[in-house]
Amino acid sequence: MIIHGDLGSGNCLKVKWTADLCAHAYEWRHVDIMKGEARTAAFAAMNPAMQTPTVDFGDGKYLAQSNAIIRYLARGTRLLPDDPWTQAKIDEWLFWEQYSHEPYIARCRFQMKYLGWSADKREAWRVDLAGKALERMETALAGRVFLVGDAFTIADIALYAYTHVAHEGGFDLSARSHVQAWLARCAAELSRGKGSAP
Amino acid sequence: MIIHGDLGSGNCLKVKWTADLCAHAYEWRHVDIMKGEARTAAFAAMNPAMQTPTVDFGDGKYLAQSNAIIRYLARGTRLLPDDPWTQAKIDEWLFWEQYSHEPYIARCRFQMKYLGWSADKREAWRVDLAGKALERMETALAGRVFLVGDAFTIADIALYAYTHVAHEGGFDLSARSHVQAWLARCAAELSRGKGSAP
Repeated sequence: MIIHGDLGSGNCLKVKWTADLCAHAYEWRHVDIMKGEARTAAFAAMNPAMQTPTVDFGDGKYLAQSNAIIRYLARGTRLLPDDPWTQAKIDEWLFWEQYSHEPYIARCRFQMKYLGWSADKREAWRVDLAGKALERMETALAGRVFLVGDAFTIADIALYAYTHVAHEGGFDLSARSHVQAWLARCAAELSRGKGSAP
Repeated sequence: MIIHGDLGSGNCLKVKWTADLCAHAYEWRHVDIMKGEARTAAFAAMNPAMQTPTVDFGDGKYLAQSNAIIRYLARGTRLLPDDPWTQAKIDEWLFWEQYSHEPYIARCRFQMKYLGWSADKREAWRVDLAGKALERMETALAGRVFLVGDAFTIADIALYAYTHVAHEGGFDLSARSHVQAWLARCAAELSRGKGSAP
């Protein structure tokens, strides 16, 4: 398979980490979104939503949406246990991540890291919701090792992606000890994948 | 199971429609978010994200996030075929819906229907992205009966939820003939569920 993405993007890294941990062979093709490389006709033919990551599985089979991709790549592995209720709780985190975490934390990071904004320029409402998302994680991780059950799953991969670079969006995790400890556990798990040490 | 939700919310209706079509028995408990009924300590104990819909399956098992819920309720039915690739393409639409459709179309509808805003008061960037989401659907539905494969699935349920009330958010679907025809097909499918005629 060919993964079209950018290693600076948390959404793209989710796919790399999952592919590495599941030992899927792949070719990585860099897409520079700042140069409009996801806005070409060739890219739109693979993914009409013109977003990275997009995976080409061959035979005209393309898949977009980071969390849909990692769910597909991880099927049948320890990263996505077969039990339906466990999968439902993982899905709950995956959808929450795309609705209540990524639009705030990842967007602020994009503004500061890619657009060069100062922290002061970020929208107050977005900063507020990012803080609420981090607080929700801190509460959820109190007394827990990983987000769902007792084992590392794609729910942790999805949430780790932008939480571990939240400081690049101007967010201070120093007061969130449960999140910090969980980040370290996730990093240890991810280091098992080939060349994927975060 | 007990579904905590509001029949005026597309996200909550997804759960009702899926439960009806799959013939799951349930009790519906109305939650008035405008009165802060999802912001109580009792509600937060069920769902710390304090969002509807939230489903109580008994024995301390709670599930939030509309698309996670319908995926769980529909497992093993025609609404979520077993084939992994079909499921991946359904998931692609589910995640796209929560990231690139709901935040724009549903939010504009909320502003106009619940907050009483005029169409002019909606943010230009949000209206623009809502238009792009509807255009993406129009393109995807050209020459297709349903969003994935040839059959009605939870991908259609998820996208129908706010597309069929897009006019309440100030969006005109009259020029989007493929979307209109698909909406009619979805409505016919949904009418098979008990008491769920849209």
